[in-house]
Amino acid sequence: MAMEQDKEFVREITPREVDYSQWYVDVVLKAGLADYAPVKGCIVIRPYGYALWEAVQRELDARFKETGHVNAYFPMLIPESFFRKEAEHVEGFSPQVAWVTHGGDEQLGERLAVRPTSETIICTMYSKWIQSWRDLPVLINQWCSVVRWEKATRPFLRTTEFLWQEGHTAHRTEEEAEREARRILEIYRSFMEEVLAIPVIVGQKSESEKFAGALRTYCVEALMSDGRALQAGTSHNLGQHFSKVFDITFLDTDGQLKYVWQTSWGVSHRIIGALVMVHGDDRGLVLPPRIAPHQVVIVPIAPVKRREEVLEHARVLCRMLSEHCRVKLDDREEYTPGWKFNEWEMRGVPLRVEIGPRDIDAGQVVLARRDRLERITVSRDQLVESVLDVLESIQRSMYQKALRFLEDNTHRVDDFNEFCRILAERRGFLRTGWCGDGECERAVKEATGATIRCIPFVRHQDPGPCIYCGAPGRYEVYFARAY
Amino acid sequence: MAMEQDKEFVREITPREVDYSQWYVDVVLKAGLADYAPVKGCIVIRPYGYALWEAVQRELDARFKETGHVNAYFPMLIPESFFRKEAEHVEGFSPQVAWVTHGGDEQLGERLAVRPTSETIICTMYSKWIQSWRDLPVLINQWCSVVRWEKATRPFLRTTEFLWQEGHTAHRTEEEAEREARRILEIYRSFMEEVLAIPVIVGQKSESEKFAGALRTYCVEALMSDGRALQAGTSHNLGQHFSKVFDITFLDTDGQLKYVWQTSWGVSHRIIGALVMVHGDDRGLVLPPRIAPHQVVIVPIAPVKRREEVLEHARVLCRMLSEHCRVKLDDREEYTPGWKFNEWEMRGVPLRVEIGPRDIDAGQVVLARRDRLERITVSRDQLVESVLDVLESIQRSMYQKALRFLEDNTHRVDDFNEFCRILAERRGFLRTGWCGDGECERAVKEATGATIRCIPFVRHQDPGPCIYCGAPGRYEVYFARAY
Repeated sequence: MAMEQDKEFVREITPREVDYSQWYVDVVLKAGLADYAPVKGCIVIRPYGYALWEAVQRELDARFKETGHVNAYFPMLIPESFFRKEAEHVEGFSPQVAWVTHGGDEQLGERLAVRPTSETIICTMYSKWIQSWRDLPVLINQWCSVVRWEKATRPFLRTTEFLWQEGHTAHRTEEEAEREARRILEIYRSFMEEVLAIPVIVGQKSESEKFAGALRTYCVEALMSDGRALQAGTSHNLGQHFSKVFDITFLDTDGQLKYVWQTSWGVSHRIIGALVMVHGDDRGLVLPPRIAPHQVVIVPIAPVKRREEVLEHARVLCRMLSEHCRVKLDDREEYTPGWKFNEWEMRGVPLRVEIGPRDIDAGQVVLARRDRLERITVSRDQLVESVLDVLESIQRSMYQKALRFLEDNTHRVDDFNEFCRILAERRGFLRTGWCGDGECERAVKEATGATIRCIPFVRHQDPGPCIYCGAPGRYEVYFARAY
Repeated sequence: MAMEQDKEFVREITPREVDYSQWYVDVVLKAGLADYAPVKGCIVIRPYGYALWEAVQRELDARFKETGHVNAYFPMLIPESFFRKEAEHVEGFSPQVAWVTHGGDEQLGERLAVRPTSETIICTMYSKWIQSWRDLPVLINQWCSVVRWEKATRPFLRTTEFLWQEGHTAHRTEEEAEREARRILEIYRSFMEEVLAIPVIVGQKSESEKFAGALRTYCVEALMSDGRALQAGTSHNLGQHFSKVFDITFLDTDGQLKYVWQTSWGVSHRIIGALVMVHGDDRGLVLPPRIAPHQVVIVPIAPVKRREEVLEHARVLCRMLSEHCRVKLDDREEYTPGWKFNEWEMRGVPLRVEIGPRDIDAGQVVLARRDRLERITVSRDQLVESVLDVLESIQRSMYQKALRFLEDNTHRVDDFNEFCRILAERRGFLRTGWCGDGECERAVKEATGATIRCIPFVRHQDPGPCIYCGAPGRYEVYFARAY
């Protein structure tokens, strides 16, 4: 029975080499992050997945508040007429809108959009709230879900409904709005790298990839372990596009009536998908300690004879650790230690503490690292220090490993044939020159499926010739196939 | 200018005696809790109101987690066919459902309900997840918004979309489900009384007032300062109604396949309305310290000559207090101290600390209590202790005041004419006997607008005769007109 239980997990996850997409779905489902919902394109976020989202919220929300932002809540239903006010915006979003047409048995006079994003309703309120320079800046964020009708969906990465945060700010000057958009981008970067241990490329979107209605869109782009890119967060300088359409004006100190400058920015639950794909392995999830719901799991190895004694020791360890980290004691009787090892490995808990009769006798415990699948024995007297050290080491080493992967899979290319060959063979980021013409961008996309992920802030070298037309490059860009 | 500013606030709020409804709306709008949205029946929850909701979430969420609950997220769109499975449930909710009929330009094959509550989608998932007694209990909560099409709406109290939490649990035995429903009710009671300082009557709903599809509904009922009742939270023992319809079975330890026993329970953002109406006065909001976003506001009184000195002292006080409570320093230059006094009074900050040149010279500060509008002078050396003592005292005294009001406005009545007279004159809770017949309940409601708020757990005396038919009472009940 025990052996059978032990093998179950390994059987359940398709190896990455065999079928990466299936591996991803297997991990999401088996680790209990999410399940398919019986509603087209929707998922249920299960408790373990939601605990990850709560950790994301806790970390990001603290950073937003430290920089002066406050939360609010705007209605999820937006009248069609609001939605139609900004031309680019409506064109970008209308194919994806879910429409409410009836309330109870009554047909509505005007259809209501289930929000795909909230610029239009928020701008309508800002136009009422903002009168004077004294009312600025307005720095509001909202945690909510949005709905976008999608044809092809994948858990977390692209779902009809998804959880996100959307910040919407209004400023007195263009410089201040630009500073805000860049400040938020830096929050996203540091959060991705320092908390999720996911290195990112930071830069600006091309015209064709920017947000519908924005002046400029900035983004952080990550690389998944199959070599495809994933946009992890975006920050938009909206300029005065929306303030002019929604008439958001203020009386400035100089007595002039002016339009505000705006930004909007968001991160969605797709970063949970990024966590899976950047760090996961064939045994399942591998979570960085700073975001892990349980950083440590204690598994007692208790033969019948010394059962109560081992459990008591495990409880003491749990109490000791609980003051310093997020620890869980798995004292379930109906599962074997081997089954528990496999389960918590699959769920990506960074560190397992094992304690059995021999460990008690020797005054030691065994620590098993999830990232390297290594076990070390440490003295019980040093438990807290050892655990905290190892957690720090795991966090660092996961980031280093992901960074090495990103670097190893970023290729400078000047020749379009080479570009196509790399994409066909091993994917990754392709750094190239680009003349800035949308036609070249489109041609590359049609030929290869790769898009410009961003124009990086940090340029490695002169752009070189445009990868498609060969004319002198205006920008150095990162191309990739993306989720 | 200063004097004009100072008067502005008082002018803006309609006194309760003049028009209670208008007073309520004035406080909600002027204190910045919410604003009307340009969507029928919807409000925008502004940052100050949302900070209150975040405090509610923080307090309740901690209590749910302490008792073993975890959070998850289920889709907001529910196929019509799911919704129609439980007969009582669909009858109760259908008139209020907002229907999505189109995704982009496509008409959907089946309409989707924007969730008015999530039993049907959650039960569908539970039926898949629950197989064995090992999978029980399932103790899941969800923080989200729901939509119910309402004819008459009022900010926070009744809105088309509202924020809430909904818990959904599944258990092995009937006793365990009953224990869960009662345990949650106790969490609601203690939260209302200890955190919001709102005393409540705890009991069971009559058949006609229970949740559509429940076996029994328990509730906590509060009394607003105009003598109308408000249902602040409900906890339902669902029995096996939903598990039989949605086929949620488990293999028990005895090898038998059985249906699970379920509960569901919720508290919505209407308790922010209760906070306004229980504690507010003609100057605006009065917040209990435990829930107040800012417990203390420091207002420096700085004449031009000693401006920098006073500000520096204020900053030191702020740093001292910030380790012990939620404190805000209002150092805005564009407003007078008088204007700030009025604004923070309107926003209900429990305690104001004033510091000016004379206070500095005398080594003292002035504390102004919002609840009693009293000012006391304390030694600066004792600041932290004094502030914490006064905050404790405010919390206690606000609860005592609300309890006295509840008691003074609860009347034992045996005669129906007396019943009608009290309701016409001063409202409040009416304790009466009830024979248990729904016809009597309906007749009282039609004649007076009062409904049975609950059958209390704590019975004061023998029920006495039924208030309507005069037959021997089976229950002692609380009647009231309610929000």
